[in-house]
Amino acid sequence: MQIEWIAVDWGTTNLRVWIMDAQGNVVDRLASDKGMGVLGKADFEPALLELINPYLSDNRRTPVLCCGMVGARQGWSEAAYVPVPCTPAGVGHAIKVETRDTRLSVYILPGLSQAQPADVMRGEETQIAGYLAQHPNFDGVLCLPGTHSKWAHISASEVVSFKTYMTGEIFAILSSGSVLRHSLDSTGWDNDAYVAAVDHSYARPQSIAGDLFSIRAQDLLTGVNSAKSRATLSGTLIGLELAAARPYWLGQQVVLIGADKMVEIYQTALNHLGALVACHSGEDVTVAGLRAAYGMFKEKVS
Amino acid sequence: MQIEWIAVDWGTTNLRVWIMDAQGNVVDRLASDKGMGVLGKADFEPALLELINPYLSDNRRTPVLCCGMVGARQGWSEAAYVPVPCTPAGVGHAIKVETRDTRLSVYILPGLSQAQPADVMRGEETQIAGYLAQHPNFDGVLCLPGTHSKWAHISASEVVSFKTYMTGEIFAILSSGSVLRHSLDSTGWDNDAYVAAVDHSYARPQSIAGDLFSIRAQDLLTGVNSAKSRATLSGTLIGLELAAARPYWLGQQVVLIGADKMVEIYQTALNHLGALVACHSGEDVTVAGLRAAYGMFKEKVS
Repeated sequence: MQIEWIAVDWGTTNLRVWIMDAQGNVVDRLASDKGMGVLGKADFEPALLELINPYLSDNRRTPVLCCGMVGARQGWSEAAYVPVPCTPAGVGHAIKVETRDTRLSVYILPGLSQAQPADVMRGEETQIAGYLAQHPNFDGVLCLPGTHSKWAHISASEVVSFKTYMTGEIFAILSSGSVLRHSLDSTGWDNDAYVAAVDHSYARPQSIAGDLFSIRAQDLLTGVNSAKSRATLSGTLIGLELAAARPYWLGQQVVLIGADKMVEIYQTALNHLGALVACHSGEDVTVAGLRAAYGMFKEKVS
Repeated sequence: MQIEWIAVDWGTTNLRVWIMDAQGNVVDRLASDKGMGVLGKADFEPALLELINPYLSDNRRTPVLCCGMVGARQGWSEAAYVPVPCTPAGVGHAIKVETRDTRLSVYILPGLSQAQPADVMRGEETQIAGYLAQHPNFDGVLCLPGTHSKWAHISASEVVSFKTYMTGEIFAILSSGSVLRHSLDSTGWDNDAYVAAVDHSYARPQSIAGDLFSIRAQDLLTGVNSAKSRATLSGTLIGLELAAARPYWLGQQVVLIGADKMVEIYQTALNHLGALVACHSGEDVTVAGLRAAYGMFKEKVS
């Protein structure tokens, strides 16, 4: 088995690794829960070695190309943001990380920043680069729903502007840490309740803080099933995001990129609001983005 | 020292007790952090005795009148909600709790409910009753900001309708459990930033999920001081509440009831939006409400 390089997506909660051959094929996939959030500076190299050790060669430094929160100030080593407009995943701005292990040659790709309105991303720029590598002439809007949903205007292969919504994180902390947790102990889903909530909060976004408590009150008074409450919370938050992001999707060519379930619920909401969207798998574009960056990297060092 | 009865405000996080004489004066004040949230069914009586034991007499059952989350389903004993419209803190619906200790006679006052839109309160109805005991002819709107802010329409001594906003809880979980915590490690306050944020989210409530992330992004890019970020988060959430609660305060006589600091920041925002409001201390009205309920209770049992 010929290993040429290693692709790494290192986020706040997860470390994901793809072992790559010279043709750019994925030879193996590895993962651990050693995300940036639980690691000190000295823990990154061991956490990486724990996964990739069997694939390293004693005769060469294997290139390891990383994207994500690993490049944040509190990560392994800070890779300064590249301001938009720019082509995403700028290999020219990748930083080299010194390692103790001489079998490694680690680089971290930078995130993107926007001065006004202030915004940042780390990791999504690589997914965007991956999508653009597969669709070089794409002009339109990419939406990457998740913990921090990103909407990005793409034109002439550049990210022109972008906007982050904390929708996923707000859902997570409300459903686990607020009084709503008593009404949400389910992984079920009620699509009608979801769509009704999207409608309601899209039309009356200001009512959200009150709508959220109504989920709890309705349950206390009439015993709503928790799948309905969960879908209502999700719809309330996504309806709010779509109300704010309207200039991004209205009359635009929109592609949703992310985990299947997440993409599906955004698609349902956007279709309901009259927008046609295409969907694309998240893992696929992360690898494609790292592969594209590695291609540029190889040109540069050779 | 003549103890006639004991007033108790038992919330989710705190237990507060006032020892009362026959004239309705407060003889002593006691408190602990044994709120409903950390107690099982069997823990309530010991938690209460821990505070009031020195004040009990062996010769009689001392009446203990409680309000708050102690009467919730997961509390000491459930006191079913009384539906609005009704006079608040209905002593007629108080429930008696059986105790092991024969020196106690414990009653829990019910909360209020509203069928449509679904809403509930526990504890605030006693503060409302206290305010109305002091201002018997009040007609207008009472606002009780806090973890769950309550707005109540009062007419002819009744709570006609009310609405809960999760503003305080959302602030708490965002500032302690979200990515914003990195930008908010301060108890400082920047009033200009607060008012600007109120303005912004009052005018564009749908933008909140994006505005929240901007607080973090701005800090990452330009190093905003955390007092400014904290005030911006607070203003963003309170501006949102005031946009939704507009029918409650616009052109109405509004009285704010609660902790001084909390009341002050709501007053600042409401004044900025052109509403004139009066303010009233929260502890004061809780005791007044329990005192009024005890007066009715005494009439009933004598």
